[in-house]
Amino acid sequence: MDENDHTIFVGSKPFMNYVTGVVMQFTMQNADTVVVKARGKFISKAVDIAEVASKRFLEGQVFVGEIKTDSEEFKNKEGRQVRVSTIELGLKKQ
Amino acid sequence: MDENDHTIFVGSKPFMNYVTGVVMQFTMQNADTVVVKARGKFISKAVDIAEVASKRFLEGQVFVGEIKTDSEEFKNKEGRQVRVSTIELGLKKQ
Repeated sequence: MDENDHTIFVGSKPFMNYVTGVVMQFTMQNADTVVVKARGKFISKAVDIAEVASKRFLEGQVFVGEIKTDSEEFKNKEGRQVRVSTIELGLKKQ
Repeated sequence: MDENDHTIFVGSKPFMNYVTGVVMQFTMQNADTVVVKARGKFISKAVDIAEVASKRFLEGQVFVGEIKTDSEEFKNKEGRQVRVSTIELGLKKQ
């Protein structure tokens, strides 16, 4: 299975939906790596999801490995160039 | 100078205060590494600060290197045990 299949994009759904999603990818789909991605204001939530999944639900089984941040540029509705930060948190089986 | 001297704790002050703080540590105080730290809801802001400082103000001079997340446990005012996520973003001279 392609690593891209094990990616969770964090948005406005309830917090535990994403945590459950991460846990299920490891336990049901036997993923070795799950990447939690977010942009802008959802970055804090993505870090919470990675921490809770790895430290509470999958303690001793999964850890937060490589973390990358970046910036994306795009035009908003008013045609202005806008910058937004992104994060990728790589959770890995121990 | 101790590396700990080059740490910026992100809170509720205006965004640009922190960006200026990072830029000044590199330019005026000649730091090799500046660590941007935050907890909870300020994590998104800390990522924005690291991205804007490294990609807009210090482009080609500074990059976001090692990023670490963790969890802290503490008792809130009501005596309940609470978990909060933390982040540390290490900005380094190129």
